[in-house]
Amino acid sequence: MSDNQPLTVKSIEWNDEQSILRIIDQTFLPGRTVYSDIKDTGRVWEAIKKLRVRGAPAIGISAAYGFYLGIKDLPEDNFLSFKVEAERIGDYLKSSRPTAVNLGWAVDRLLQTINAYKEKPVGEIKKRVLQIAKTIHSDDRRICKAIGELGAELVKKGDQIITHCNTGGLATAEYGTALSVIYHAHIAGKDIHVWVDETRPLLQGARLTTYELSQAEVPFTLITDSMAGMVMQQEKADMVIVGTDRVAANGDTANKIGTYSLAVLANAHNIPFYVAAPLSSIDLSTKSGKEIPIEERDSDEVTHWESHQIAPKKTTVYNPAFDVTPASLISGFITEKGIVTENFEENLKALFE
Amino acid sequence: MSDNQPLTVKSIEWNDEQSILRIIDQTFLPGRTVYSDIKDTGRVWEAIKKLRVRGAPAIGISAAYGFYLGIKDLPEDNFLSFKVEAERIGDYLKSSRPTAVNLGWAVDRLLQTINAYKEKPVGEIKKRVLQIAKTIHSDDRRICKAIGELGAELVKKGDQIITHCNTGGLATAEYGTALSVIYHAHIAGKDIHVWVDETRPLLQGARLTTYELSQAEVPFTLITDSMAGMVMQQEKADMVIVGTDRVAANGDTANKIGTYSLAVLANAHNIPFYVAAPLSSIDLSTKSGKEIPIEERDSDEVTHWESHQIAPKKTTVYNPAFDVTPASLISGFITEKGIVTENFEENLKALFE
Repeated sequence: MSDNQPLTVKSIEWNDEQSILRIIDQTFLPGRTVYSDIKDTGRVWEAIKKLRVRGAPAIGISAAYGFYLGIKDLPEDNFLSFKVEAERIGDYLKSSRPTAVNLGWAVDRLLQTINAYKEKPVGEIKKRVLQIAKTIHSDDRRICKAIGELGAELVKKGDQIITHCNTGGLATAEYGTALSVIYHAHIAGKDIHVWVDETRPLLQGARLTTYELSQAEVPFTLITDSMAGMVMQQEKADMVIVGTDRVAANGDTANKIGTYSLAVLANAHNIPFYVAAPLSSIDLSTKSGKEIPIEERDSDEVTHWESHQIAPKKTTVYNPAFDVTPASLISGFITEKGIVTENFEENLKALFE
Repeated sequence: MSDNQPLTVKSIEWNDEQSILRIIDQTFLPGRTVYSDIKDTGRVWEAIKKLRVRGAPAIGISAAYGFYLGIKDLPEDNFLSFKVEAERIGDYLKSSRPTAVNLGWAVDRLLQTINAYKEKPVGEIKKRVLQIAKTIHSDDRRICKAIGELGAELVKKGDQIITHCNTGGLATAEYGTALSVIYHAHIAGKDIHVWVDETRPLLQGARLTTYELSQAEVPFTLITDSMAGMVMQQEKADMVIVGTDRVAANGDTANKIGTYSLAVLANAHNIPFYVAAPLSSIDLSTKSGKEIPIEERDSDEVTHWESHQIAPKKTTVYNPAFDVTPASLISGFITEKGIVTENFEENLKALFE
């Protein structure tokens, strides 16, 4: 894989000259590749909320640029009022989606930057903020590559891998998290086959993961979420790899709804279950899964397909966007700093030292 | 519940005067209630194949009338050629869907009728065949009612019940199988709440079960199939009840894809898992689940929503319509002759004695 020919999609680009955040609007994929040029914080908030940009790392990157778009035109004569306004913008961006920790992580990193440079002129601070946003972006690319290379070592020749939701280039700066492992195993000639959970209700697997795997020419088969159990029963799955929106200090892991079921099924079939987790998604301040807020989304996502109504009017729906997989069902975490397979509490913490 | 005001939908009606089978075309539900008047075997075959009529008992009833529609105009001068032609019609109808045993069961029952009356004039035999078809139809109503009444005794006050696919009046002559248990528990004032799995790919839960439960005013909440595990994890489910397309002699049970996953999840959470099974769906000649043929359906069911394409073109899909739940994960079978909770092999056989 050369750096000139990226294997995976670039979902986020920053135009430095014009201060424009360009994203692929993922709600149109795979039908149409629509780019959206964003110039203000409000539209970044909307893009995250409506899943135009999605995937924990990509949300973090977009929020970082969104934060810069919010502060770049603020008055520069008074640091304190600049800081108060910047904090308000940070809180606003954090309110777009509650579960993914990368969002808060990126915003907090920029707020810390503001504090660290408080002696400097505000104009200078703004430049530093943009620099950090770009660093978050480029770091993510490097981190995703490391996760892929390290994780690929877990994959044996001929392995069949189940994955859920979309964790590829679209969900990150490039390569992805769980999909980066899959790409790198594929490139290493491991002759793998991927079972792609369609991932209801928003079908990120059917719409996005299939699209990315097709482009990278990785052999795969699409299934409904309800078929993963049967695939395991038929001994057609050797491992499960998923991404994450937040890993708690004890290893409990929030990820796309359906992940918990997949983990229980993998456990019942003695199939290893791995979580690809950049350090930015590990939140040591969250003790366990019980403390992770779970976003509930609009019932229309379940009752409608685009404008088509599937279920009768007034149908009551439960639509949590995520679930929490207890650490006990997880075989290991694949991070950019190595793979953690035991004593999660201790070893996850050690990654940050 | 009075007999004049059926609680559940009647999906199949037979017009005796005109020899017309009227079905509700379930592919249009819940958007529109479209009745389809069928006058020949070919259109019955097509209706079963395309899931216009679906649910193991309803397939059996429709096939019985479809068989009669096929034989009613055959020449009456030679019994042997009548019989050969009738067998050909029977084989043709059986080819529409392989997994549900009720289809073959109904057709074989009519072929036996023909043999039993071989001394009678062919015109007379035809009348007997129609009579048996009507008996299969009316028996099913009575059987479903018995299953509901017996099964309701398993339900405790305030229970929350997960169900999968559609097993209501639409899938049977009336009342349904698993849904009949739910209706009868509701009528008995047990204050139940139902979690309805949407049931991908064809959304029989979202489209049909919600429709039937709404009409019967049973409180329910629609979820995607991938949420059932989280509902169990949150201790919001007290039991799972599903229907079946075929129960093998040892208790292994074929049912709509996703049932196996649900059974593994119920087992992991110590939640009882019941199968509502009329005797017509218990096939003692099939020793175990390994012998049950599993129908694979068109990939379009997964890659498209009506005419909308969800996944990229040329996406490879695995689309088994059913899976097999091993007997070890099943708490009991609710039949019209009683509830079997142990020694399945022996006790299922005893039901036929």
